[in-house]
Amino acid sequence: MTEFIPEGSRFHALASPFPMKRGGHLHGARVAYETWGTLAADAGNAILIVTGLSPDAHAAGHAGNPATGWWEPMLGPGKPIDTDRWFVVCVNSLGSCKGSTGPASIDPATGQPYRLSFPELSVEDIANAAAEVVRALGIGQLACLIGNSMGGMTALALLLQHPGIARTHINVSGSAQALPFSIAIRSLQREAIRLDPAWNGGDYDEAHYPESGMRMARKLGVITYRSALEWDGRFGRVRLDSEHADEDPFSLEFQVESYLEGHARRFVRRFDPNCYLYLGRAMDWFDLAEYGNGDVMAGLARIRVQRALAIGANTDILFPVEQQQQIADGLAAGGADTRFIGMDSPQGHDAFLVDYDRYGPAIGGFLERLPPA
Amino acid sequence: MTEFIPEGSRFHALASPFPMKRGGHLHGARVAYETWGTLAADAGNAILIVTGLSPDAHAAGHAGNPATGWWEPMLGPGKPIDTDRWFVVCVNSLGSCKGSTGPASIDPATGQPYRLSFPELSVEDIANAAAEVVRALGIGQLACLIGNSMGGMTALALLLQHPGIARTHINVSGSAQALPFSIAIRSLQREAIRLDPAWNGGDYDEAHYPESGMRMARKLGVITYRSALEWDGRFGRVRLDSEHADEDPFSLEFQVESYLEGHARRFVRRFDPNCYLYLGRAMDWFDLAEYGNGDVMAGLARIRVQRALAIGANTDILFPVEQQQQIADGLAAGGADTRFIGMDSPQGHDAFLVDYDRYGPAIGGFLERLPPA
Repeated sequence: MTEFIPEGSRFHALASPFPMKRGGHLHGARVAYETWGTLAADAGNAILIVTGLSPDAHAAGHAGNPATGWWEPMLGPGKPIDTDRWFVVCVNSLGSCKGSTGPASIDPATGQPYRLSFPELSVEDIANAAAEVVRALGIGQLACLIGNSMGGMTALALLLQHPGIARTHINVSGSAQALPFSIAIRSLQREAIRLDPAWNGGDYDEAHYPESGMRMARKLGVITYRSALEWDGRFGRVRLDSEHADEDPFSLEFQVESYLEGHARRFVRRFDPNCYLYLGRAMDWFDLAEYGNGDVMAGLARIRVQRALAIGANTDILFPVEQQQQIADGLAAGGADTRFIGMDSPQGHDAFLVDYDRYGPAIGGFLERLPPA
Repeated sequence: MTEFIPEGSRFHALASPFPMKRGGHLHGARVAYETWGTLAADAGNAILIVTGLSPDAHAAGHAGNPATGWWEPMLGPGKPIDTDRWFVVCVNSLGSCKGSTGPASIDPATGQPYRLSFPELSVEDIANAAAEVVRALGIGQLACLIGNSMGGMTALALLLQHPGIARTHINVSGSAQALPFSIAIRSLQREAIRLDPAWNGGDYDEAHYPESGMRMARKLGVITYRSALEWDGRFGRVRLDSEHADEDPFSLEFQVESYLEGHARRFVRRFDPNCYLYLGRAMDWFDLAEYGNGDVMAGLARIRVQRALAIGANTDILFPVEQQQQIADGLAAGGADTRFIGMDSPQGHDAFLVDYDRYGPAIGGFLERLPPA
């Protein structure tokens, strides 16, 4: 049970008890966050970024931690999210293991990690925790709320549960409800972890760790984060230089297999398996139809923002671009001046982390055109 | 180690030794096949069907075994593949476990199952074994060769290795070379099986069987055989009626999860895990570029048939429809009168097993228009 907390993280102590949507409370919980730029005197220039499943709050380098962040090309002085103009906050999701309280954190009631005793986590809880950070920083209304992937769900929950918290919204590769294909993928990822004997009902440690289950889960994730089209061009049928091919008749042979293996090996010890289970299940449960009498469009139309951009990649198989179109349509029905962009990016769901030539101008252009508060 | 041989199967004893493309020989090997209809005196009305990964040779019911076959709506008197006109042969793939010799079969040299001592299997070997059946039945030239999915690969290998074996060809959801996305999926399926401790290096039995590995592998298969679009309409976010939800916090909750679980449970004890490994790897290795100096189109263009149909579903993520377009283009470059049909079927790779309203007329129409030999 390890947490992976970036240097220079800041922490907000959540209200204690902090109520959880599906029951139970957290006591003494916290949210890790980082900031860039300077908050204006009227607090009118604030942007909040809520993230996908695995990122921490370190979206980009800053004085407290100059290490490259996971959205480095997007965030900084003169970049699309221009920190000369905007005060930017990024939070680590509640339930994660990168500084915010989650299943890998110590339960103050027992002095032991929560593991599976952590209460059921929903996207709405992640949103409520992020909202507390916004308020604590003295921000009455965000100039823009940006959510990527799972963060696109978090952002929609934030807007619904905290009306007026943002003037505008950028939803990147997001979804207003989990659909069966992505549920099936995440269910299989959880099964891989749970089938690993070392998972042991959530009671593992560094010495007895569900490494192979996490490796399987991560590989399946990476397969669905990218696109077949991209891989055709990138890997084709190129083989590894293998002098050990005879040792194991089913060993890795193609570059694409080695790529997945490398990705997975880098990940498995850097993300807590129980947190992975909790966050994936939270996504499966997410459904804005709950807020629209069973109609997801009606749920979306309850959200009030002035302007919105929903953006995605035409090659995304996990959160298909039709889901970003739906978000755009729903927010427009709620009165927002809304734009939808379906990018011809070959990189699938992860395009927003790769295709900066397209995503930079799209997101930067939206922010540039925002009027002062 | 169990083989699953349909009643009423017939067997062809392969040449012994039977040489394998990647080295080694089989001794005393056989191919299981079934037939429908009556072979004309000039043997000019024969159709051969080569199958996907898992089917046996029982494509449809017949007097020897009236049980419903895996392509029942397509094959029979008055059906699209009309057995009043055609003499139809379907073979079980070499390397499979449904009557043809494979890793689950007894090695006559040892009296024990081959398991991983089975020689490396290639699609070309599967094709050569099928060609022997054609010759043994007294068929000089097939009126049509039909291959589905992996069978689409087998068919192309047959046509290349046995010029003149067929006048015409129907390639259904096939591929002229394995591409990285499908390699990645199959590699992960193999990893799931191999990681199951009960797999035991291929040395399992009914009592100690890699059930969970096979279940994972099959679920991943089924996810990629269908399409997100179909599942949205079919399952949506419908939940199971579960009164046991509290027992396991990560138990199945959505209908789509239950669907996968049911599919997987029906499959895992009906297909030999080592055969699954061998057949999947054979697909990964398949590449017609080997026959075209590194150019897959040149390999395809070496095939000589009079007419061809390449058909697939626009929603196929495993063998994308661009691969069927490529087959059509390549066969046309080789001089065939070729038609390509990209079906708007929502059922993905498996559409040819489901969407008979579209596939029946397409395949039946092609066959109807064939002139006599």
